[in-house]
Amino acid sequence: MEKIAANMDPLFNPRSVAVIGASDNSGKLGFHVMKSLTKGGFAGKIIPVNPGTAEIMGIKVSTSISDYDGQVDLAIVVLPAKLIPGVFQECADKGVKGIVLITAGFKEIDDPAGAGLHDEIAAIANRAGIPVIGPNTFGMINFYADLNASFTPEFSRLKKGAIALVSQSGGISHLLGFMAMRMDVGFSKIIGLGNRVNVDFTQMVDYLMGDPDTKVIILYLEGIDEPRDLIETVRKYRSQKPVIAYKTGSAVVGDQASLSHTGSMAGRHEVYIGAFSQAGILNIDNTETLIDTAKAMAACPIPDGPGIAVLSGQAGPGMAACDVCEANDLMIVNFSEQTQQKINEYLPPLALRTNPVDMGPAWYDSSATGRIIRAVMDDENVNGILLLIMFASANIDVLKGISNFIMDWRQKKPFITCISAPPGIWDDEIRRLEESGAMANYPTPERAARAMVNLWGYKKL
Amino acid sequence: MEKIAANMDPLFNPRSVAVIGASDNSGKLGFHVMKSLTKGGFAGKIIPVNPGTAEIMGIKVSTSISDYDGQVDLAIVVLPAKLIPGVFQECADKGVKGIVLITAGFKEIDDPAGAGLHDEIAAIANRAGIPVIGPNTFGMINFYADLNASFTPEFSRLKKGAIALVSQSGGISHLLGFMAMRMDVGFSKIIGLGNRVNVDFTQMVDYLMGDPDTKVIILYLEGIDEPRDLIETVRKYRSQKPVIAYKTGSAVVGDQASLSHTGSMAGRHEVYIGAFSQAGILNIDNTETLIDTAKAMAACPIPDGPGIAVLSGQAGPGMAACDVCEANDLMIVNFSEQTQQKINEYLPPLALRTNPVDMGPAWYDSSATGRIIRAVMDDENVNGILLLIMFASANIDVLKGISNFIMDWRQKKPFITCISAPPGIWDDEIRRLEESGAMANYPTPERAARAMVNLWGYKKL
Repeated sequence: MEKIAANMDPLFNPRSVAVIGASDNSGKLGFHVMKSLTKGGFAGKIIPVNPGTAEIMGIKVSTSISDYDGQVDLAIVVLPAKLIPGVFQECADKGVKGIVLITAGFKEIDDPAGAGLHDEIAAIANRAGIPVIGPNTFGMINFYADLNASFTPEFSRLKKGAIALVSQSGGISHLLGFMAMRMDVGFSKIIGLGNRVNVDFTQMVDYLMGDPDTKVIILYLEGIDEPRDLIETVRKYRSQKPVIAYKTGSAVVGDQASLSHTGSMAGRHEVYIGAFSQAGILNIDNTETLIDTAKAMAACPIPDGPGIAVLSGQAGPGMAACDVCEANDLMIVNFSEQTQQKINEYLPPLALRTNPVDMGPAWYDSSATGRIIRAVMDDENVNGILLLIMFASANIDVLKGISNFIMDWRQKKPFITCISAPPGIWDDEIRRLEESGAMANYPTPERAARAMVNLWGYKKL
Repeated sequence: MEKIAANMDPLFNPRSVAVIGASDNSGKLGFHVMKSLTKGGFAGKIIPVNPGTAEIMGIKVSTSISDYDGQVDLAIVVLPAKLIPGVFQECADKGVKGIVLITAGFKEIDDPAGAGLHDEIAAIANRAGIPVIGPNTFGMINFYADLNASFTPEFSRLKKGAIALVSQSGGISHLLGFMAMRMDVGFSKIIGLGNRVNVDFTQMVDYLMGDPDTKVIILYLEGIDEPRDLIETVRKYRSQKPVIAYKTGSAVVGDQASLSHTGSMAGRHEVYIGAFSQAGILNIDNTETLIDTAKAMAACPIPDGPGIAVLSGQAGPGMAACDVCEANDLMIVNFSEQTQQKINEYLPPLALRTNPVDMGPAWYDSSATGRIIRAVMDDENVNGILLLIMFASANIDVLKGISNFIMDWRQKKPFITCISAPPGIWDDEIRRLEESGAMANYPTPERAARAMVNLWGYKKL
């Protein structure tokens, strides 16, 4: 198993990748894998393997991996299940360091032959010390190596980021990827575990804790074979990097789906959730909050306490945020006397000047708005700031006016926003602020507040 | 009050609109209101009123409303508060039918003079039978009249739809509008009630129940003066049109914000929520679910029962949807024998063929996928369908293949989907299906399932 751990790095950072079952027929997965590798910008050697074709996508094809004259670090395999033991033995003989096994038809099928094949290939891989992603997976992507080892070339549209996703479902991985494209959220790695020969959540958490590109680890789980190993591993690294989990399978019918899907029962949902919390894993119950929370953790420091300041350009969104905060253990704190004095200078008595602050009356003076934000940022009672501003034609300049206040102050306390405007008006400025690491922005005040709740929820674990 | 009710129609469908306090200075709200009217495509007469300017945006200015020679149906007023009683009297004398009073500074301010002014203008408006939207509002928009009577020209970017929003918060109205732009959701009317002289939620519900353009009414509330009136009015129209409410103010600090904001305490949050439910109002607790639910109600029939079919292209999203359904009183029902037989024909034994159905193995044969959907649609055990399909390069044609099955069947049972792909791939096809009235699509399986939960939740009230 030590060799398997040592081979995780070449698996994710190979210099040469063979596609066993490469194809130039777009009806075949081997075609899409080739497209992912070539269009994804992988700079290493790509070796299509197919005994019946001379060239695929302009690249010379090898008839078999043994025939290829040179080192193969990673093999992506898309041949039918019954051929896999032979292919694995060939990979072992060739000195391949890692395998992504996309092929389905192992222990998830009713036929006991599937389970037999699974055991057979596991034995070969373990003996040779080859870590295997899959079988029955879409693959994996290492964005920092421009390595798209999946059958979905479109994953390469995602930007590089600090979030690693380890998932038991291809569907959920694709969904989170597409959501992230629309939310402009970046990933370090996306890994589809599939049916797990020797790389499970445990091995991935172990590896990702040492991965310099990954700051936040998110797990999507249905059922796992060895929850104790995962829990022990996470506990070992406690408070080094946040681990966030979304586990489905609370529904009775869902369990059947899980059994069919990944060959293991979801089972005892609440037991898992409780054990995860105790180990320091933050549990989330839907895909949107999962990605929202990961985004906040990638962008913001973890708050030192539950004291929140709510600053809004309009009272309604401020109230919506306060409701979520107060219902979830955050406190809308009183400002220090000094902070309150400053705010009273910048805002007329008409406005609500205590926390939550309605900054509307300072709209037309963005330096006043900026100074209010600064005063609150410096307040020692405040552990995190929620800023909520809705565009109106009359306040179009306010964002530009406060950007520098936000930028200068970045990474001291979590700064989470819902700054909302019609498409095309503030998008670039919001992106600039997010990319500078100054804040994390959300489409609604409630989602912004929920992200803050989850940062504190992680700290409290 | 009868005259006020009779004047609601010319208020929302005026032939002539005066802007009292029109301006060509972009620092003034009177400028933005003029822009809203002119850029919004209003086809009636626009009458800028300002004693100091000859022409604004190419339109001849009147020195006062009395000086204008002709009928004025609607007056939008943006002058300072202390001038408003005089303006109102002039409007009454001129025979104006409705007023949108954008000006702030009435009972929401600490100064008792504000409350005095409020009473004064209320008396004039009530005597003259003029319904007043405001004061302290961004205004209102009637999309079917191309009438943008607000200080935010960008509202006119929204498409026409079946949802009317009545809101106590300008911030929340803007937020929902911007969200709807990005979600491609349309509105019939957006009304910012502000501090409410004589048009409150009650009057609006009364009016909108008879509005042929409005199918679903959504209310955003903080605190209301006469909850009984609203509750009685909604009860009177029970099951004619869905009324959905989002009330903030559960937080203690939120109450202070509400008092300052709209001059009334949010107070007794749970009491309101309970009373609303009893009257047949569906309560929602965040902006995103509010718009998601309104969208589903505008697009889908209300289900006759709690029996749901979950059809997914990948097991994970199906499990996520099942979890939400089962936790919220929907049932993942057994199919009828006939339906099950058909599905068994189209899917290999490898797949999960009972509900939830994993259609993955039929991806490459979209007519099989279509026939499964059709069989399930016709099943009498099934009251609503959730369809969840994530794009992969290999299934790019599946959506086109099943579109006709979905289109032919529209409006018989709620058909709610999470069909997700990278930007630009399936967007047009999804929009076409949504615009045909065949389905409502959501970005995540959980949001799709939640929309179905809320359709059934409304039916159960």
